[in-house]
Amino acid sequence: MTSNISPSTALLTDHYELTMLQAALRSGAAERRSVFEVFARRLPDGRRYGVVAGTGRFLEALKNFRFTDAEIDDLRERDVVDESTLEWLADYRFSGDIYGYPEGECYFPGSPLLVVESTFAEGVLLETLALSILNHDSAVAAAASRMTSAAAGRPCIEMGSRRTHEEAAVAAARAAYVAGFATSSNLEAGRRFDVPTAGTSAHAFTLLHDDEREAFTTQVESLGKNTTLLVDTYDVTNAVNIAVEVAGPELGGVRLDSGDLLVQAREVRAQLDSLGAKNTKIVVTSDLDEYAIAALAAGPVDAYGVGTSLVTGSGAPTAGMVYKLVQHSDDNGEMIDVAKKSKDKISVGGRKWALRRRNTEGVAEAEIIGIGTKPQDDGGDREMLVQLVQGGEVIVATDAKTARETHERSRAELPATAHQMSRGEAVIPTRYERRGV
Amino acid sequence: MTSNISPSTALLTDHYELTMLQAALRSGAAERRSVFEVFARRLPDGRRYGVVAGTGRFLEALKNFRFTDAEIDDLRERDVVDESTLEWLADYRFSGDIYGYPEGECYFPGSPLLVVESTFAEGVLLETLALSILNHDSAVAAAASRMTSAAAGRPCIEMGSRRTHEEAAVAAARAAYVAGFATSSNLEAGRRFDVPTAGTSAHAFTLLHDDEREAFTTQVESLGKNTTLLVDTYDVTNAVNIAVEVAGPELGGVRLDSGDLLVQAREVRAQLDSLGAKNTKIVVTSDLDEYAIAALAAGPVDAYGVGTSLVTGSGAPTAGMVYKLVQHSDDNGEMIDVAKKSKDKISVGGRKWALRRRNTEGVAEAEIIGIGTKPQDDGGDREMLVQLVQGGEVIVATDAKTARETHERSRAELPATAHQMSRGEAVIPTRYERRGV
Repeated sequence: MTSNISPSTALLTDHYELTMLQAALRSGAAERRSVFEVFARRLPDGRRYGVVAGTGRFLEALKNFRFTDAEIDDLRERDVVDESTLEWLADYRFSGDIYGYPEGECYFPGSPLLVVESTFAEGVLLETLALSILNHDSAVAAAASRMTSAAAGRPCIEMGSRRTHEEAAVAAARAAYVAGFATSSNLEAGRRFDVPTAGTSAHAFTLLHDDEREAFTTQVESLGKNTTLLVDTYDVTNAVNIAVEVAGPELGGVRLDSGDLLVQAREVRAQLDSLGAKNTKIVVTSDLDEYAIAALAAGPVDAYGVGTSLVTGSGAPTAGMVYKLVQHSDDNGEMIDVAKKSKDKISVGGRKWALRRRNTEGVAEAEIIGIGTKPQDDGGDREMLVQLVQGGEVIVATDAKTARETHERSRAELPATAHQMSRGEAVIPTRYERRGV
Repeated sequence: MTSNISPSTALLTDHYELTMLQAALRSGAAERRSVFEVFARRLPDGRRYGVVAGTGRFLEALKNFRFTDAEIDDLRERDVVDESTLEWLADYRFSGDIYGYPEGECYFPGSPLLVVESTFAEGVLLETLALSILNHDSAVAAAASRMTSAAAGRPCIEMGSRRTHEEAAVAAARAAYVAGFATSSNLEAGRRFDVPTAGTSAHAFTLLHDDEREAFTTQVESLGKNTTLLVDTYDVTNAVNIAVEVAGPELGGVRLDSGDLLVQAREVRAQLDSLGAKNTKIVVTSDLDEYAIAALAAGPVDAYGVGTSLVTGSGAPTAGMVYKLVQHSDDNGEMIDVAKKSKDKISVGGRKWALRRRNTEGVAEAEIIGIGTKPQDDGGDREMLVQLVQGGEVIVATDAKTARETHERSRAELPATAHQMSRGEAVIPTRYERRGV
């Protein structure tokens, strides 16, 4: 059994990173000290905060970002770059430093989410991989955070694997967990990232059996009375009666996957209570998003299953982060700030630092970004950048659970308006402080 | 060097597929002959046709859908299913038949895109993987097809890797190629799927050098005069002058990545012509989608680079296909049609067949779906389902190039209104024909 996925992550890279490398090696500029930064120019339309996710996955992928013989042979065969560049790539191993926002942190326009310090050659190669991972995972986490916020403590279940690329699904399950989801349907996310997984049955299981009673009986015998029975294959009221007859009042849960969920949840709750199944939970699924979850807050719902809208970022499937060269050394070894001046895409040159300014109650007030120097802490501020990589070695935890804790703390610090579902501005402003100003 | 990606695709699966399997093994229903079908209830809002993509990737992934010791140990450790189910899984190998639309075909609401014939147990396990791959790849291909249609023969370059999950990026490059894109930036797509890759340089390359002339000179010396120079880092007019001075009129191309592309393309074309660089091509990039491409049709543009909107399906990031049990055997061995009756999600039971009805000019007129029997060919019809898997063995080509040819033929057969960019209905109607009717 062989995989069509290489263990090396090095070719998950845009062609032009390698041609730039080739040209820069020729001019000698490849060896200039450089600073690249990842940031988002803006939040997706109407969002009040972003969530950094994928940092841990990026750091793990960085360990495998090596051009082994297989990658070198392929690049040679397809004539991507010249021999001297291939020789350089064969020896490549990122040896620089990387700073960044801890995974799970909330962020705002301009927040320096990753700061990569290395030679130009070493740093430029990481652009595509870093952006792919952060843009995807952060988009999912931002949507997930709004959903868990709307769910207000009721558990959210990630079940969107079938609506996104099979590997993106694994990463989406992880990102959702970072942003507070309780469980995922994705088994690989369980194995790879220790995300708790859960699931019971689909309509196909009921349809397979001669009738609903036989299907429920089989499920309860096999999975126990604490299982969740899917009750909307034919008629919900009838199914709930059968479910409680089969499992007794100890039945773990029933799932509703169609129709008006608020109305049905109320009817089913009353029915379950009348049958003595007062502890049987009601799980709802069916094209939920953060707005539907918020609308169900008033209903007797015990858990929300979310699929499509989660894995597609609920209208914002990519976080729109960019990776920009902001500083490099010149021939005298002096670091100079750089930024393109393209119409409608102006960037801010210079190495960034960041503080989250907080008021005396510990509530976030502003994102303070220092250009070229650390901004002044005015007392209760929190420094945002931590060192992630030192001399090429990853020096922080990369697991999802740590990121989940970070997110919970970071979100709790935001002003209450962060939790409004309606479209709005970033919940705190971004302020730049320039060196010497 | 180790990968965090297992060669087995078996855990790219929802937890509930395995718990259903456990329960069905207990009742014996697991061994019932079953037919599962993949179809889309509707096209994304306003789309005139869909494009099946990912079939080849699914068939390759099917070969690796095996529960090896690593998967079994993980499932045991996390207590996902019981020991007898684990024993069954350890021996699992799909041994059924699969029929489907050839990859690259256009499709319509209800088209039976995959028809899986096996036992319930063997078929139910494939749901998540099949849907993940088809929903992702088909969403990208549908968007890509509209873009290549709008480009009307001018080459389209896929460059969206940084805006989507790193593995989804590879699949997106492949799907775009299936739908007529000329090249991709994604190196792994080049290696894995033989998608032609291309790229030259980014703004960082210009910013790295002391001035634009040095950057351009370096690039031309290294990559040749036929390279494409990025001319919008500072001032476009100035950059174009320098570009032609440096490379001469043989300069391959210039790239515009910001501003009003139509206005700039016209100005740059005039400037290039006046400098004698009449064959120098103009490549435009910068948040293009099918509408922007259509709007640039009137401009002197030679190639379109498309990123975000392509990999996110241009507003429809998932194709919304479902995988439904439509038929199974009963205790007498008779096949019976099944379908759930859930409010707002009614399915059509019974095994499906499909013809594309064509008029005497060979133009598609309707999608004829036979329920339980092949519909009657009225002369020029085309049968849509081909056998993909026989007794568990893949028996068709799974490469992207074959699918690309299929798409070109299939799209050419649609009525001209298929190519309108405006929102509309499916360009041909879907008609069901029932057995015995």
